[in-house]
Amino acid sequence: MPSNDNKPFTDIAAVNAMFAAHFPDNETRAIVTEMRDGFAALELKSDARHLRPGNMVSGPTQMALADTVAYVVVFTKLGITPMAVTSNLNMHFLRPCLGPLVRAEGTLLRIGKTSATIEVRIFGEGHSEPSSFSTVAYALPK
Amino acid sequence: MPSNDNKPFTDIAAVNAMFAAHFPDNETRAIVTEMRDGFAALELKSDARHLRPGNMVSGPTQMALADTVAYVVVFTKLGITPMAVTSNLNMHFLRPCLGPLVRAEGTLLRIGKTSATIEVRIFGEGHSEPSSFSTVAYALPK
Amino acid sequence: MPSNDNKPFTDIAAVNAMFAAHFPDNETRAIVTEMRDGFAALELKSDARHLRPGNMVSGPTQMALADTVAYVVVFTKLGITPMAVTSNLNMHFLRPCLGPLVRAEGTLLRIGKTSATIEVRIFGEGHSEPSSFSTVAYALPK
Amino acid sequence: MPSNDNKPFTDIAAVNAMFAAHFPDNETRAIVTEMRDGFAALELKSDARHLRPGNMVSGPTQMALADTVAYVVVFTKLGITPMAVTSNLNMHFLRPCLGPLVRAEGTLLRIGKTSATIEVRIFGEGHSEPSSFSTVAYALPK
Repeated sequence: MPSNDNKPFTDIAAVNAMFAAHFPDNETRAIVTEMRDGFAALELKSDARHLRPGNMVSGPTQMALADTVAYVVVFTKLGITPMAVTSNLNMHFLRPCLGPLVRAEGTLLRIGKTSATIEVRIFGEGHSEPSSFSTVAYALPK
Repeated sequence: MPSNDNKPFTDIAAVNAMFAAHFPDNETRAIVTEMRDGFAALELKSDARHLRPGNMVSGPTQMALADTVAYVVVFTKLGITPMAVTSNLNMHFLRPCLGPLVRAEGTLLRIGKTSATIEVRIFGEGHSEPSSFSTVAYALPK
Repeated sequence: MPSNDNKPFTDIAAVNAMFAAHFPDNETRAIVTEMRDGFAALELKSDARHLRPGNMVSGPTQMALADTVAYVVVFTKLGITPMAVTSNLNMHFLRPCLGPLVRAEGTLLRIGKTSATIEVRIFGEGHSEPSSFSTVAYALPK
Repeated sequence: MPSNDNKPFTDIAAVNAMFAAHFPDNETRAIVTEMRDGFAALELKSDARHLRPGNMVSGPTQMALADTVAYVVVFTKLGITPMAVTSNLNMHFLRPCLGPLVRAEGTLLRIGKTSATIEVRIFGEGHSEPSSFSTVAYALPK
């Protein structure tokens, strides 16, 4: 399902359907809400499985969101690419992440033939400053 | 529950009990299997929630394990320290992580008054080369 | 030389004078060109010492620039703070960095009592896309 | 100058000659002292250009050393590979690095067709605990 030529792939419904089909038991049931050329956003309605004492959204939940939104950013360039795999994720935890609604925004830094690098900001509900900042690198299939 | 003087804290049963009490719905039900001065190991019996197509243990599961084993390494120096929080996690994904049994090993690189840095290797079942390598920084309470 | 209250410290001349005095043999003679609240920019006129075959500005030169611009971002919040020390630097190299003029831009992600985290983009001359992207963490003195 | 088959490339003199020829003005005149399969070590006799107040070896000097020793680790697998380029460097600064003699040790974590990942420890003179710990990723030419 490659994107045509240089036109970005932005079929949000197709991506959400693919996630629901392939990751039925995924701990993070995030929904893709935006796709543009080199940009994607996800939203997660966090519940008890994602929370730590103090109702903070856990670090692993934020890392899963960052990984997923970066994957969707790759899709905006290449179409749905199941064989792309994460090669590196670096996350700085900046502030408590309070839910329940959590938003992840990914922006492409670079895509080449064999890899892509994406920056990700995650925001707790109603917050304008990110709870975490990360960079994610994906290795791309040929 | 601070450790006495310079004696390492190695009460594995206390740490496993604390995790079971505080994270009852944690997606990663890893068990602490070793604690020594500046070292800890965890084991996870992975199940469908942790797996990706091809029966590979997911990146978020490995990140959660790395975060947890680093936390336990801090405990070997300071005793159980609920208020320590992750400030940075950097993970390189090196090879497919095949379960079901996954092992995480954390080794202290440095602990100071306000932060600790730990390196973590994660191994799929029966593998001698790590599936991922990470460094984790924790901010320590006063 | 702390900044007053919440007013940002933006004395570019003072910072350039401090760098010239303390790092006379510094391999990177970058000049601070902008300071605002939580933001700083540097420019380096690269020469043979900074170049690799193909006239590309070397990775270590870019890392030195990132480290320095992040330091100056801290100054915009705390005034000149010689005892702040880098605790982590993570750089992704995205594209060749062609000089001679190289520009580094640092933006604060968070500053707390014991640490600050800054994102840095570096640009070759006349380029609108960054040659590298990095995050830098500083440990702050009391 | 590829290595034969699976035999490691360990021609230290050839690597030092290549560095002297290609980086005559390099700020870091480190000498390769060891090469084994998947391992390399460098030594730098630091001077005023590498030092910060307190005679500490600067962060950028350590980053340059980490980058270089990782490059040499790649050579042990592929022979001298000028077109390999750094894609990511993540360094944690752990302790003051006191010279004059600084040692960098790099160990291969993984090498694939398009990338290699190396861990690096740097030691000040006479120190058994590392002053910094880093991971370095190289993109490999075809």
